Amino acid sequence: GHPVYREMPATIFEKMSARARETGAINLGQGFPDAQGPEDILRAAADALMTRSNQYPPSDGLPELRAAVAAHYGRHQGLALEPEAVIVTSGATEAIAATLFALVQPGDEVLLLAPLYDAYLPLVERAGGIARVIRLTPPDWRVTQEALEAAVGLRTRLLILNNPLNPSGSIMDEAELAMLAAFCVEHDLIAICDEVWEHVTFDGRTHQPLMRFPGMAERAVKIGSAGKIFSLTGWKIGWMCAAPPVARLLGRAHQFLTFTSAPNLQWAVAEGLAKPDDWFAAMRAGYQASRDRLVDGLRAGGYDVQRSAATWFVTLDLRGSGIALDDVAFCERIIGEAGVAGIPISAFYPDAAVKHLVRLCFSKSDAVIDEAVARLCHFR
Amino acid sequence: GHPVYREMPATIFEKMSARARETGAINLGQGFPDAQGPEDILRAAADALMTRSNQYPPSDGLPELRAAVAAHYGRHQGLALEPEAVIVTSGATEAIAATLFALVQPGDEVLLLAPLYDAYLPLVERAGGIARVIRLTPPDWRVTQEALEAAVGLRTRLLILNNPLNPSGSIMDEAELAMLAAFCVEHDLIAICDEVWEHVTFDGRTHQPLMRFPGMAERAVKIGSAGKIFSLTGWKIGWMCAAPPVARLLGRAHQFLTFTSAPNLQWAVAEGLAKPDDWFAAMRAGYQASRDRLVDGLRAGGYDVQRSAATWFVTLDLRGSGIALDDVAFCERIIGEAGVAGIPISAFYPDAAVKHLVRLCFSKSDAVIDEAVARLCHFR
Ligand SMILES: CSCCC(=O)C(=O)O
Ligand SMILES: CSCCC(=O)C(=O)O
Repeated sequence: GHPVYREMPATIFEKMSARARETGAINLGQGFPDAQGPEDILRAAADALMTRSNQYPPSDGLPELRAAVAAHYGRHQGLALEPEAVIVTSGATEAIAATLFALVQPGDEVLLLAPLYDAYLPLVERAGGIARVIRLTPPDWRVTQEALEAAVGLRTRLLILNNPLNPSGSIMDEAELAMLAAFCVEHDLIAICDEVWEHVTFDGRTHQPLMRFPGMAERAVKIGSAGKIFSLTGWKIGWMCAAPPVARLLGRAHQFLTFTSAPNLQWAVAEGLAKPDDWFAAMRAGYQASRDRLVDGLRAGGYDVQRSAATWFVTLDLRGSGIALDDVAFCERIIGEAGVAGIPISAFYPDAAVKHLVRLCFSKSDAVIDEAVARLCHFR
Repeated sequence: GHPVYREMPATIFEKMSARARETGAINLGQGFPDAQGPEDILRAAADALMTRSNQYPPSDGLPELRAAVAAHYGRHQGLALEPEAVIVTSGATEAIAATLFALVQPGDEVLLLAPLYDAYLPLVERAGGIARVIRLTPPDWRVTQEALEAAVGLRTRLLILNNPLNPSGSIMDEAELAMLAAFCVEHDLIAICDEVWEHVTFDGRTHQPLMRFPGMAERAVKIGSAGKIFSLTGWKIGWMCAAPPVARLLGRAHQFLTFTSAPNLQWAVAEGLAKPDDWFAAMRAGYQASRDRLVDGLRAGGYDVQRSAATWFVTLDLRGSGIALDDVAFCERIIGEAGVAGIPISAFYPDAAVKHLVRLCFSKSDAVIDEAVARLCHFR
C-alpha cells in the first residue's frame, strides 16, 4: 500500500517560518507580505461579518463572487467565463486538491513540472495517480516539447503547471504556452493551471492564461487565489474555473473537502476583484520596487541575484556569488548566523534537484528588506 | 477504476437549500440558525481582521486556538489534551477528509454507521478504503455488538461515528460507548469521532466523548466544529484532536488540503471557547425552547414528532402521523405545496433506507417556526 502521509515532513515553508519565529530571524522564506492588506477590503469583510449572514453560503460559492471572478477574468485576461464556470474554494491549495480528487482515477498518469509546489506530488499520489516529473532548470526554466513527449504515455490524463512559476519568478512566453496547448490537445490532456501569481508581474509584463489558447477552453482548469492578488495570504479564498461540465465535477469534490468558505471574506473578495486597473498597476509597482530594493542591495554586497519577472520571490545564485555551499547548507548558515530565513530551491524538486539557488521573499517593508540586506551582506 | 465523483449529485443539503431559495420556501432542511450569531464573537473577529495579521497562521492552527480547544475539552469533558493534540481545520468536513486521507490506506476497511453524514462514504472510497455500513434504525438508533462483530474483519482499520447523531438527534448512552471502546481496543481500530453536536444537548443531558473511555486516548480522533458550537455555520473553523503522534499525521494531510484557515476567525473562536458555563447553558436552553416550540406546534396539528435529545433537528414520523407517503415524496409535497423544506431521512442511508422519517431543523426564530408549523398543519 501507499505509505499515505506516514513518512512525510511538515512543508518547508512551515518549518522555516517556525524556525524564524523561534530564532527571531527575518523571515524571507514563506511567501507572505508583512503589510496589513488593503484597508477597504478589510473593512468590507469586517462590515459583512457584523451585518450579513455568517451561515453556510452555497457550496460552489456566493453568486456575487462567482460572477465577480468571471467578470474579472473577462476584463483582465479576455476570458469568456460564465459564473457557473467558477467554483470558490478555501484557498488555491484546496482548489488543487479538489481538482485532483475530482479528475484523477487510480492509475492515471499526471505530468508535473519541477520546481513544483510541494502539495502537487503528494496529492497526485493520494488520489491514486502516478506522477511523471519533468525537470526545468535555470536560467530560462523552459519546458520543451521533447521533454513533454518523452514523459507522456497512453495513461497520461493530466498536466499541472504553475505560471508564473514559483520559485523561479519566471513567466512562460507565448510560444511555450502555444506549444503546451497543442500538446494537451494532441494527447487529450486536461491542464491544471495554477495561475495564482497572475497579477504579480513586473516590468510591464502581462499574464496569459493557458485557457485562452486554442482548444484549451474545454480542457483547462484555471486556479486563482485572493490571498496572492490582495496580499491577504491568511484569508484562504481561492477558486477553480473550468467549462461548466468539468466545473460541476470539481464542485462535487469540493463539497466533501470543505463544503464552503466564510461568506464575509467571499463578499469582500468580490468587491476587491472589481477594483479599477490602476489599483492592480499600483500593487505591481509596489512589489516591483521591493524586488529592486532587495536585488540592488544584495548586488551591492556582491551577491548574484536575478530580477524576477513575477511573484514575490527572487533567487540568489550561490555559484554566481562565489559561495561554495549548496542551498540547504547556505539556508542553515544564514538562519543561524545572519538571522535571515530563505528557502532552498532543492525543496521544490522531488529528485535531481537544482542546488545552487536560494529563494528570498521581498513582499516586505523597506525597513525589513534593508535590514535583511545588511545582515546578508555582513554575513558575506 | 473508481468512478471518482463522476456520478455524484450535489449534496441533499445543497439541493434543498437551492430549491428553498428559488421557491421562497421556509428552509428547515440544511442545518443552520437564522440568527446573526454571538455579537461579542463577531466583534472579536471583526477587530482581529482590522488590527491583527491576515497572513498565513501556522498550518496546524494558531497556538491560541489549539490551547483554547485543549483547555475547553479539559473543562467541559474531562479530557487531558495538550495543544499539540489539536489540529485546526477549515470546518469539520475538512477534518473528516484530512483524517481519512491521513489514515486510510488503499484496501483498508472502514466501519460506518447509517444514518450517516453524506461526506463519509465518498471520502472513505476516495481514500481507497472499503466501507462496511452498519444500519441503525428508529426509535432507539442503537448499535449492537453483534452488528459490529458481523461487520468487522481482518482488514478493518477504522470506525466512524457521529455522536450526538445527525439526523436522529439521539445520543449514545454510557453502556453503548463503553461497548464501542472495548470493541475498538479488541480489534485494534481507530475511531473517528464526529462529535460536532457535543454542546447542543437537551433536557440536562451531557455529552460523553468516546476518547475518555478506556484505551481510547490513543485511538480516538475527536472532531469538533465552531460553527455548531457558536451558531456560525459559515465560518468553517473546526478541529481534530488525537494523541500527538496521530495528530502529526493528521496535520500532514491537512497541510495539503487547505494548509490553514483565516486567523481572525481562529482568534475569535479561541475567545468563544473560554466563555463561562452559563453561556453554553443559555445556548442549549434557547435551542431546547425552539425544539419544543416546533414539536408542540406540529403535535397540536396531528403530527407524530419526537423530541430529540440533541442537535438542531427533530424527525417527523410519517407512519405515526398517518401519512401514506414516503419521506422523499412528502418532502417534495411540502416544499411544493406548503412552502417548507425538510430533509428525507433516506438521504442518510446508502441503501436499505429508513423511509418514514423527515428531518426538520428548528434553529430558527420563533416567528419562522410558527409560520412553518402553520403551513405544515394547513397542508395536513
Ligand atoms: C502555503 S505556504 C507556501 C506559501 C507560498 O506560496 C510559498 O511560500 O511558496
Ligand atoms: C455542510 S451542509 C450540512 C449541514 C448539516 O450539518 C446538516 O444539515 O446536516
